[in-house]
Amino acid sequence: MDGEEDSAKMLRSAAQLRGLQAPDVWVPDNEDATAPNMREEGVGNIIEVVAEHGAEFPGEIHPRVVWHRDSPSTRYQGFQQLQELADPANGAIDHLDGFVIPEVGDIDDWKKADEFLTILEHEYGLETGSLSMSVIIESGEAELAMGDLREEIGKPSNNLERLFLLVDGEVDYTKDMRAMTPTGELPAWPELRHNTSRGASAAGLIAIDGPYDDIRDIEGYHERMTANRAKGMLGIWSLTPGQVIEANTAPLPPDTGQWRFEVDDRELELDGADGTQVVTSERVSVDETASGSYRFTVGDDHQELSDAELREELLDRTAYVPSMTDIVDSMEEFEAAKEAGKGAIAMTRSTTLEIDGVEIEISKDRMWDEATYLAAQTPITLFQDVYENRPDQHEELEELYGENIVERALSVGQ
Amino acid sequence: MDGEEDSAKMLRSAAQLRGLQAPDVWVPDNEDATAPNMREEGVGNIIEVVAEHGAEFPGEIHPRVVWHRDSPSTRYQGFQQLQELADPANGAIDHLDGFVIPEVGDIDDWKKADEFLTILEHEYGLETGSLSMSVIIESGEAELAMGDLREEIGKPSNNLERLFLLVDGEVDYTKDMRAMTPTGELPAWPELRHNTSRGASAAGLIAIDGPYDDIRDIEGYHERMTANRAKGMLGIWSLTPGQVIEANTAPLPPDTGQWRFEVDDRELELDGADGTQVVTSERVSVDETASGSYRFTVGDDHQELSDAELREELLDRTAYVPSMTDIVDSMEEFEAAKEAGKGAIAMTRSTTLEIDGVEIEISKDRMWDEATYLAAQTPITLFQDVYENRPDQHEELEELYGENIVERALSVGQ
Amino acid sequence: MDGEEDSAKMLRSAAQLRGLQAPDVWVPDNEDATAPNMREEGVGNIIEVVAEHGAEFPGEIHPRVVWHRDSPSTRYQGFQQLQELADPANGAIDHLDGFVIPEVGDIDDWKKADEFLTILEHEYGLETGSLSMSVIIESGEAELAMGDLREEIGKPSNNLERLFLLVDGEVDYTKDMRAMTPTGELPAWPELRHNTSRGASAAGLIAIDGPYDDIRDIEGYHERMTANRAKGMLGIWSLTPGQVIEANTAPLPPDTGQWRFEVDDRELELDGADGTQVVTSERVSVDETASGSYRFTVGDDHQELSDAELREELLDRTAYVPSMTDIVDSMEEFEAAKEAGKGAIAMTRSTTLEIDGVEIEISKDRMWDEATYLAAQTPITLFQDVYENRPDQHEELEELYGENIVERALSVGQ
Repeated sequence: MDGEEDSAKMLRSAAQLRGLQAPDVWVPDNEDATAPNMREEGVGNIIEVVAEHGAEFPGEIHPRVVWHRDSPSTRYQGFQQLQELADPANGAIDHLDGFVIPEVGDIDDWKKADEFLTILEHEYGLETGSLSMSVIIESGEAELAMGDLREEIGKPSNNLERLFLLVDGEVDYTKDMRAMTPTGELPAWPELRHNTSRGASAAGLIAIDGPYDDIRDIEGYHERMTANRAKGMLGIWSLTPGQVIEANTAPLPPDTGQWRFEVDDRELELDGADGTQVVTSERVSVDETASGSYRFTVGDDHQELSDAELREELLDRTAYVPSMTDIVDSMEEFEAAKEAGKGAIAMTRSTTLEIDGVEIEISKDRMWDEATYLAAQTPITLFQDVYENRPDQHEELEELYGENIVERALSVGQ
Repeated sequence: MDGEEDSAKMLRSAAQLRGLQAPDVWVPDNEDATAPNMREEGVGNIIEVVAEHGAEFPGEIHPRVVWHRDSPSTRYQGFQQLQELADPANGAIDHLDGFVIPEVGDIDDWKKADEFLTILEHEYGLETGSLSMSVIIESGEAELAMGDLREEIGKPSNNLERLFLLVDGEVDYTKDMRAMTPTGELPAWPELRHNTSRGASAAGLIAIDGPYDDIRDIEGYHERMTANRAKGMLGIWSLTPGQVIEANTAPLPPDTGQWRFEVDDRELELDGADGTQVVTSERVSVDETASGSYRFTVGDDHQELSDAELREELLDRTAYVPSMTDIVDSMEEFEAAKEAGKGAIAMTRSTTLEIDGVEIEISKDRMWDEATYLAAQTPITLFQDVYENRPDQHEELEELYGENIVERALSVGQ
Repeated sequence: MDGEEDSAKMLRSAAQLRGLQAPDVWVPDNEDATAPNMREEGVGNIIEVVAEHGAEFPGEIHPRVVWHRDSPSTRYQGFQQLQELADPANGAIDHLDGFVIPEVGDIDDWKKADEFLTILEHEYGLETGSLSMSVIIESGEAELAMGDLREEIGKPSNNLERLFLLVDGEVDYTKDMRAMTPTGELPAWPELRHNTSRGASAAGLIAIDGPYDDIRDIEGYHERMTANRAKGMLGIWSLTPGQVIEANTAPLPPDTGQWRFEVDDRELELDGADGTQVVTSERVSVDETASGSYRFTVGDDHQELSDAELREELLDRTAYVPSMTDIVDSMEEFEAAKEAGKGAIAMTRSTTLEIDGVEIEISKDRMWDEATYLAAQTPITLFQDVYENRPDQHEELEELYGENIVERALSVGQ
């Protein structure tokens, strides 16, 4: 950020990341992180680094150029940057997969960027649509545009089929919406993220969340990604190699399963090292009574429960996070059942809970039908995609899961 | 689920449900719960059971056929199923009110199903539009389609006015959005449910939530329905007779009112058996001080309050869930005030709270104007609808509320 | 509310509010708060009071007339009210800035009201578009209409560019959506508020939240406004002079900054009078261990942490609400950095936390780039707008912040 040299250094080190440290999509940036008067050198730096290191970079490369829905002169600058980056004489284009266009507006504004790419493809002898285009949603009007995308994307007068990522840009979006929080933190914008995810789903694209503000806060980054995945946003912008590792690994199922226990709307992660899940919380207690029933307490709430009622109560508070092996097992089991002509089967998962020395066996049932199966397949499909496209991560993934389960995960559901 | 016989048995027992155990809309299913190779027999079973028991079934009957926005062959199968189900020769059609079409896509896809129904109506001599059509929203594109519904529904080139229920199908929607949660539970999808409810409101339809995953978890089912009603989703899919009873009774006002007290963002339900509402929580205490003021404590938070301030503080933490009688009383009072030329009146509700032996009288005021009145009327209108359409529930409803209040509830607001 | 006289009295006292007690937009009401048979007199009262006091009123004046998307006769009444209010012969129009139209429906319905205003402008020799129009969103169809606004607003066949405020009307919206809550409280409608804010952002308008139900509950009103601002809704309907003061001051940055500390998802506001921020909570404790590390406890959760880890943990739980001075300082610092050619700088904020007598220094960093700067500017721009348009508030604002900081706040970012 301190001028040309530093910027080139950062680009060079990013270009040489490998394995779980390297992102699936690298966006060499020539917008926000670059002071306006440095942007010409910025393009030069990107070209130089991509020409030198692009062939070996394991992910895709999509530089971000400048753009603004409200500024023809910024758009003209963006066009010039695109020209330079795409010019075969400069040696970068062979390693570029597409471009990221920030600050788009209405769908008509998206078409202007699309048209520039079409022109460059023709000028430089590239196949029409070969340069992908990702956009950053950072205005209310761009959010609205995502509602029209499915209809617009197939029209013969544009090449919007080149669209790839829909990225939320919450800092500028917050400004555009004139939103404020007391601490200056970004609002969570759940509706924006839903609409981006829905737009991506309806148009066959991929929804990505913008940068996470506090690069030091790994736990917060994790929670954000978990919330994003529950909305169908599969990726997140990463600003540091540490964030890249988190973003690469967090969406994959864990190596080992884990039981959770809910107390006061929070989830305790249970340590079930020796096969028994021990609940340790000052808020929770179980006592056997003289009459053989149980007194179950959570905070202020005391209940006298029979054996069966206690089991029910505990079951309601218990959840299980399946491991990669668990998911593969369940999918294989359902596939076998389907072959045998069954439309639905019950999956059971059991364990022993221990609270205050009292041990209670519980077992959770879940009906699986075709729809459940297909929904469970989402993380597996993601794993298969990653594995296919990122040979540089094979070793790390096999270390994480073991070769055997990697192999089964690659063949299930296909 | 184990083939033809079992499926027929389940259909037969569903067809014979009555009163609060019988749903308002029964959807004999020939999609997810039926293995693909069993679906031909499935249609046969539905026809047989509906022909035999349909005349006596107290609710409406809307079988679900197969359909998929992306598969012409599935749509053709769906058409064949519709033909068979609607063929007067098969004896079921007289008892069928409409059909449920799953997995719809863009509004143009909805029109294809609509057109098939139009064709069948003409072939079989039924009035155009007499077969209603409900759709299951289980894709981003179908969610977007609900934004166009109001405009499309009146066009002369379709008969979409036959539309009846908009049902969310969260399992497949989750898959379509590629969403994931650690435990495999379904995401809550608040935005989808909002958009479905809004689409229903704008097009004069009814919004229904999809199946609740965990059929054992009655409390969770209740919470989901409460959240749904706050969004304007009036119904929910039920998978068992137990869920049907819950779904039938939960939207109706309770028989007796109840006071609630908020501690740490949770609501204690107070037991006011003898007219005094006792707050029993280790987190809350009230002590009279030597100076005549009060020391009020919630967890870490200690406040020294005057009598009036304590009353204010308690008032803020207190809420009241009105009974059917309370709502009818208030509506009648407002109707009388309106007749007397008043645009707005204050409604007051008082009680005595007891905390640590200290008794405090509180009283809550609320301004009612025409808009408040109309909003309060929603559960009453629902009750009136149910009562009119479900004579088989009269006895149970009169048992629940008493004849007198049923009678007043039926005449208020008309 | 008790007829003509009372209504005139309320209007007269509203017209004479000044400073922080006077709203930016005053909406003399002739709809919900007025019984139907009193509405003719109601218009007369508005005309009389506005003619007499309008010239001195410090904010804008936008009377609400009657309207309903489903009722031609109500719309005709609304037209008649508009005619009377706008008639130059009645002496009010010179002081009126526009009108508020409730219960609008599709965008075509908005155009009907727009057309009536266009006609009146021509009849009475006013400039086309000089009367602004604000609408109340209280139906699903009006919510959907906001998605089309950006496209429709520039069409030559309407004068929708006169649009000013988009106001949510949650009571009627709740009725229209057939939503219910157990206590009769209004649902929070987060998606509606998002869509209103987005519609306003995309069309250059201002999003306003509807009345807050419980006029006694100041804390709840504050929380609602905070949530609204995080969504980009800048204003809220106020029903009492007390609510007006809250609504005027709450969006402005506070006079002094404040540290907050998170415990169990709640935020303690720390009292840092003497420069040290003391955390007093029974749930939180810090003990130094024999080995020089720390035992940090929050409720059930005990951690053994090194000095650096404790600092991290506390940092994650700490937030700072910047004062007006803090924001102006940061903006000035960034402006200077930008002039020196830097695209991004780190802002640091430090303090000392004290828990159980243990003192720990913490310091928070945040990267500021152009986008951060512009997002931080939102409350300052709001302050500048208010200051420019409301000379009657200058004195109170200078008392609140001091003259020096008011002056700097007025010139920063321009």
